[in-house]
Amino acid sequence: MIHRKRLELPRHIYPADQWKMVEKQFYPKLLGQTETIFSISNGYLGIRGVFEEGLPSFDNGTFINGFYESWPITYGEEAFGFAKTGQTIVNVTDSKIIKLYVDDEPFYLPTAKLLKFERTLDMKSGTLERDVVWELSSGKQVSIKSTRLVSFEHRHLAAISYTVTVLNAKAPVVITSEIINNGADNKTQKEEDPRRARRFEQKILQPELHYIKDTRLVLCHSTRNSKLSLAAGMEHKLETDCSFSYLSECSENKGKVQYMVDAKPGKPINLTKYIAYHTTRTAPHTSEELCNRAKRALSRARKFGFEDLLRGQKRYINEFWKKSDVKIMLNKSFSKFSTTEIQQAVRFNIFQICQATARVEGAGVPSKGLTGQAYEGHYFWDMEIYLLPFLTYTNPSIAKNLLTFRYSMLDKAREYAKRLNQKGAMFPWRTINGEEASAYYAAGTAQYHINADIMYALKKYVNTTGDYDFLYEYGAEMLVETARLWSDLGFYSKNKSGKFCIHGVTGPDEYNTVVNNNLYTNLMAQENLSFAINTVESMKKAKPDLFEDLVHKTKLKDSEIEEWKKASEKMYIPYDKKKKIHPQDDEFLNKEEWDFKNTPSDKYPLLLHFHPLVIYRHQVIKQADVVLALFLLNNKFTDEEISRNFDYYDPRTTGDSSLSVCIQSIVASKVGYMDKAVHYARNAALMDLADLGGNVNDGCHIASMGGTWMVFTFGFAGMKGNGGLLSFSPNLPSHIDKLRFPLTYRGNLIEIEIDQKNISYKLINGKKAVLLHDKKEITLTTAKPVIKRSLKFIKKD
Amino acid sequence: MIHRKRLELPRHIYPADQWKMVEKQFYPKLLGQTETIFSISNGYLGIRGVFEEGLPSFDNGTFINGFYESWPITYGEEAFGFAKTGQTIVNVTDSKIIKLYVDDEPFYLPTAKLLKFERTLDMKSGTLERDVVWELSSGKQVSIKSTRLVSFEHRHLAAISYTVTVLNAKAPVVITSEIINNGADNKTQKEEDPRRARRFEQKILQPELHYIKDTRLVLCHSTRNSKLSLAAGMEHKLETDCSFSYLSECSENKGKVQYMVDAKPGKPINLTKYIAYHTTRTAPHTSEELCNRAKRALSRARKFGFEDLLRGQKRYINEFWKKSDVKIMLNKSFSKFSTTEIQQAVRFNIFQICQATARVEGAGVPSKGLTGQAYEGHYFWDMEIYLLPFLTYTNPSIAKNLLTFRYSMLDKAREYAKRLNQKGAMFPWRTINGEEASAYYAAGTAQYHINADIMYALKKYVNTTGDYDFLYEYGAEMLVETARLWSDLGFYSKNKSGKFCIHGVTGPDEYNTVVNNNLYTNLMAQENLSFAINTVESMKKAKPDLFEDLVHKTKLKDSEIEEWKKASEKMYIPYDKKKKIHPQDDEFLNKEEWDFKNTPSDKYPLLLHFHPLVIYRHQVIKQADVVLALFLLNNKFTDEEISRNFDYYDPRTTGDSSLSVCIQSIVASKVGYMDKAVHYARNAALMDLADLGGNVNDGCHIASMGGTWMVFTFGFAGMKGNGGLLSFSPNLPSHIDKLRFPLTYRGNLIEIEIDQKNISYKLINGKKAVLLHDKKEITLTTAKPVIKRSLKFIKKD
Repeated sequence: MIHRKRLELPRHIYPADQWKMVEKQFYPKLLGQTETIFSISNGYLGIRGVFEEGLPSFDNGTFINGFYESWPITYGEEAFGFAKTGQTIVNVTDSKIIKLYVDDEPFYLPTAKLLKFERTLDMKSGTLERDVVWELSSGKQVSIKSTRLVSFEHRHLAAISYTVTVLNAKAPVVITSEIINNGADNKTQKEEDPRRARRFEQKILQPELHYIKDTRLVLCHSTRNSKLSLAAGMEHKLETDCSFSYLSECSENKGKVQYMVDAKPGKPINLTKYIAYHTTRTAPHTSEELCNRAKRALSRARKFGFEDLLRGQKRYINEFWKKSDVKIMLNKSFSKFSTTEIQQAVRFNIFQICQATARVEGAGVPSKGLTGQAYEGHYFWDMEIYLLPFLTYTNPSIAKNLLTFRYSMLDKAREYAKRLNQKGAMFPWRTINGEEASAYYAAGTAQYHINADIMYALKKYVNTTGDYDFLYEYGAEMLVETARLWSDLGFYSKNKSGKFCIHGVTGPDEYNTVVNNNLYTNLMAQENLSFAINTVESMKKAKPDLFEDLVHKTKLKDSEIEEWKKASEKMYIPYDKKKKIHPQDDEFLNKEEWDFKNTPSDKYPLLLHFHPLVIYRHQVIKQADVVLALFLLNNKFTDEEISRNFDYYDPRTTGDSSLSVCIQSIVASKVGYMDKAVHYARNAALMDLADLGGNVNDGCHIASMGGTWMVFTFGFAGMKGNGGLLSFSPNLPSHIDKLRFPLTYRGNLIEIEIDQKNISYKLINGKKAVLLHDKKEITLTTAKPVIKRSLKFIKKD
Repeated sequence: MIHRKRLELPRHIYPADQWKMVEKQFYPKLLGQTETIFSISNGYLGIRGVFEEGLPSFDNGTFINGFYESWPITYGEEAFGFAKTGQTIVNVTDSKIIKLYVDDEPFYLPTAKLLKFERTLDMKSGTLERDVVWELSSGKQVSIKSTRLVSFEHRHLAAISYTVTVLNAKAPVVITSEIINNGADNKTQKEEDPRRARRFEQKILQPELHYIKDTRLVLCHSTRNSKLSLAAGMEHKLETDCSFSYLSECSENKGKVQYMVDAKPGKPINLTKYIAYHTTRTAPHTSEELCNRAKRALSRARKFGFEDLLRGQKRYINEFWKKSDVKIMLNKSFSKFSTTEIQQAVRFNIFQICQATARVEGAGVPSKGLTGQAYEGHYFWDMEIYLLPFLTYTNPSIAKNLLTFRYSMLDKAREYAKRLNQKGAMFPWRTINGEEASAYYAAGTAQYHINADIMYALKKYVNTTGDYDFLYEYGAEMLVETARLWSDLGFYSKNKSGKFCIHGVTGPDEYNTVVNNNLYTNLMAQENLSFAINTVESMKKAKPDLFEDLVHKTKLKDSEIEEWKKASEKMYIPYDKKKKIHPQDDEFLNKEEWDFKNTPSDKYPLLLHFHPLVIYRHQVIKQADVVLALFLLNNKFTDEEISRNFDYYDPRTTGDSSLSVCIQSIVASKVGYMDKAVHYARNAALMDLADLGGNVNDGCHIASMGGTWMVFTFGFAGMKGNGGLLSFSPNLPSHIDKLRFPLTYRGNLIEIEIDQKNISYKLINGKKAVLLHDKKEITLTTAKPVIKRSLKFIKKD
């Protein structure tokens, strides 16, 4: 169920377009929302959709993935082992500002008379464009066009092409391009919403050095506590037939280049602004080197020009869509969606994942991507469970990067486990630098399942790519340490007939914390253990040398593997014989029912209106928990169990987390509740466009975007790949005529097309792909599709 | 069990003496401990046992009960309903300082050559004395004697008599008496031990005005945030045969009076210093008035003189002992105690309660009394459960004051319940001003049992005193609101055959938090409900007018009383049929056993060495929980149940809380485990003297002191009073020949004397006292004792 108000796709703001998000009017009340929607990013650098003028703005933000400030976490009451140091992604130097003055009048949207306003996020070119015509009181009309991009090809680069044309008169035009360290954030108000980022009271970025030469400026700063360094620079080129002069100046925290142009009617004045960001996690004395890197990047950019960046952008994005686009053709409205609308919404979701992950190298994916500071820019489990499936099936090299990044944090995970008196390694619930930054352990540290989640993603990655080298070289070590953790954490309980029980953990559902035998956790831990066992055993045979290394690195003993086997075999799987369902945990079914009837919609999300104790006391669920297990580990349940569990848990699920509806849709599909599945699918796809959570101001819900992709592939197309060959049992809603999407599978690019009767398998690129259809292998060797009758579940509603 | 290292009574520090705590040497390493032990207080004003010189000192503290500073509680992650404002008792203006210079050499204990050092807390005169002989390098010998008191009669007054005699020479002697605002606390180090008080970074006390006239000085300050005002003043009188002059000066934050004396050999120089503290909780503009009050108090004190204060002190303390002394005569060592030793230890415990409660008026009793700043000077449930029994049976007017103080917080408790979406009233877990100050809800707000604890103490008070006026005028309103809370909090669970269950609460044991159906809580809630029902029903008949008022004030409906009846009747009482014990909560028996064997003693208390999640996962108990219910509600259990429960829970109890051993001793007595009972009794009595918790530095464990009294009365004497007439089923350890103590019972002062054969009841003061002996009423009308054969449990070990 979704209990809160459901919003409509705001057509007046974003008219339907298959490949574009277009805003046709300036909506001052929607600043926060549109700043998020029109964010551009390449996964390394992200710039919120704030206007070039910098004002008006809801939350002017520029972020570098993994560039954070640390701060001591204070507790009203301390306890042993609590996380000590918070980490917050920094709102870095703002380099995008371009201010315009005509007849010395500043261009300022809220007061300007606009003859035209259009803003476009072009998902096929990877650019953000704005096209405005401004009429001054004098009657002079000025066209202002800008195109902004964060380069996919050159991860450190962004650029803006800014063209001003006084249409009907002569006028003095001044264009000021600025770069400024706003001091990150010095709002001191207390944040009541725990999901928003910490506000710092002091300037975080401390000046290191600054550089100016002609129209090229670089500011270098370093963070106060975390000691990270940053160089942000800009370079310019003005092209016009009008005469102009310029000046430039720079100090520690700001710089500008100002052009004074004598504009002639109809003659465009084009300024290209190149922006570069370079960061280092090493000591601050490399500022000079960073500065030089920024200078070189800017020179190169100016040399090749804006058109070159645009071409590169298109090249990248075309390639991206080839591997990732989900094509949907409707025959009737899909819960009020037209074909164009659904296409736009789904593509927006996929495009934002692209922006969040394209050039993530040596970092993770923050839960808001780089579209906002909420959740402190931390990496959570949603990276592995909600994003990695998409990446694994469309761009496995990025998936590999992210898993490698997790591996790089293994040593810290070992230390963390030790600090908590636990064996093996324990990955932090939320982090940037590998250290636990969760200040509320009940909905943080207690979520041990993240360890199994990462291993789950690893298994999916290996199975989908066949990349056993990665498994043996990096994966195995993580498997050993996480298996150790589980084996140490649980115990054999007499009260549960000697079964292996795991107590005092929190599952995905944060409305039921610190519970015993969370079904999801126990099942995922079992999966983790058996994957570890299989890996070390197969490795021992297949790669004895690497196995030797592993034993050397981890001091692995044979007896441990026996322990894992026992724990895995004896894992306690809660089951209620009366209700014939799997209890979410040992106590869940004993709790009082939540009074949904008398909870008005403005009391959602519950976490903002009820004390945790009140929530914890009830059978009320924030997000899919058992239902997530039904999806991820569907092979561990019978169809009847899936159906009964879904029937029980779905009405008790608020969907107060954005991680929920996508999973609810997928499982509804499996059960055959197609109306529900469609309804939830629409909610997932609209999470941000319709601001379903009411907080899109603070950034995109990237996990839900990954979930939206899963709704169409795992949900409607019934894709399955756990452990064996890829197969499909589509359950296409009657609204959809055709559903088509590409997949990268064991080195091949294939395309799946599903209609109400058939499923077609096509090899787009590669030599030979083997899949399962109706439990039989099919082999694709040419581009000629293999077409089969679709197998459907029996529908229940 | 007690798993941590057991310390011995440090005889070398405190030699055995029935009525005195004497320190025969200066122990610089034990500064913190002795500062606590030698604290003096009257419950309104407390001064730690810091030397007059002010240095050396571990934690120089002066406290006014209820005088606090507030501060915003910050959370790494916020959640709805979390407590917003912390409160910390303030370390106020230090008025006790007297510095001494002889031949311009400062007297400083660590470097002084001491021919004599003796410090005495005299429990029969209510004074702290020091007697020192200091030999200078020149061979001059100086006797320094001081007597310090905080007046029981005049709650705002303290005084020091300070006598210096140069024994064998002439010498210039300078005595400087100081008053100083040390700025409360400006240590900025982070406190890792959650039990210690918050350190402020800024001066809390802001100067308001200061006054000086001759040798009388007053400093007025107010707190920065909580806006409380304080006047601290001093007045002096020097008496000597030697010639002297003096000067005095005063500024905002300090003042001094300095005497320059030409000392003659053998001629004493006596300085009397009178100290006054006045505070207000109203607006700061009353500083002038406060200052005047302090001036008047000082004049009066000087007029009547130190001897008068000493006499008053003795009067009060004599009266106190008459009503409170527990006399113990041993025939053999009581777990290494001699008669004198046990007498000293028990009296020390009782004396500290006297100091913590004597003049508590309009405030509560902080968990450290006024001997330290730990636990922020907050009032917890231990006031009602551990202290009120002693007060109810020895000084009911103080018990009444404390219950009246709780009543004064009822409105805030109503607001708090409302904020947490609950009906009725919810008393805060920890507070000074009535607002919840617990920053860790799992071991704070979740301890709903405090509401039933207060009502339990109310019932005991009414039953013991017969004060039904108080019950109807104040108690009934609290009963209605707490009954409402319980009735709203629980629910009728299908899974428990329709029983009334209470979920998501924490019992007394803080090693198992946020649990379902905590036995203690459910039983106490039931008791609360039935007391509420009985009270309103009897009131309706007996005092219809007052009942009308109650209905008017609380909008009480008849239907509510029916709801309470149903909830009370259907209350779920967890019981395990296999083990034949009462589970501490629904999940406790399912948890993993703690590995006590492999937990070295330096890992206790566990809370300082293990993450809460690790602790919560195990069958490990911080403090008596089920066992506390066995004591408080013994009439709800059969003897066999008490015995079996104790057998199960005792070995799993760490006693990491000082609230535990006293209860363990009482129940061990009931079960007949006399060796255990004696062992625990000794631990309770030595809690502070042997520094059992390792933190006596931070203040006395006042609750354990109340518990120590209960060990002898409820435990060994087997006193019972729940609901009916007082009775005794003694279970005297074989080590004790005689146990004698007075009780104030329904307006009479009676004395109970128990030996190995008989029990003797005696009326000391009053007209007629009715008690139960062997289920029959006995009536005491004269001072002639009624002597009966003692009834014993069958011993089991």
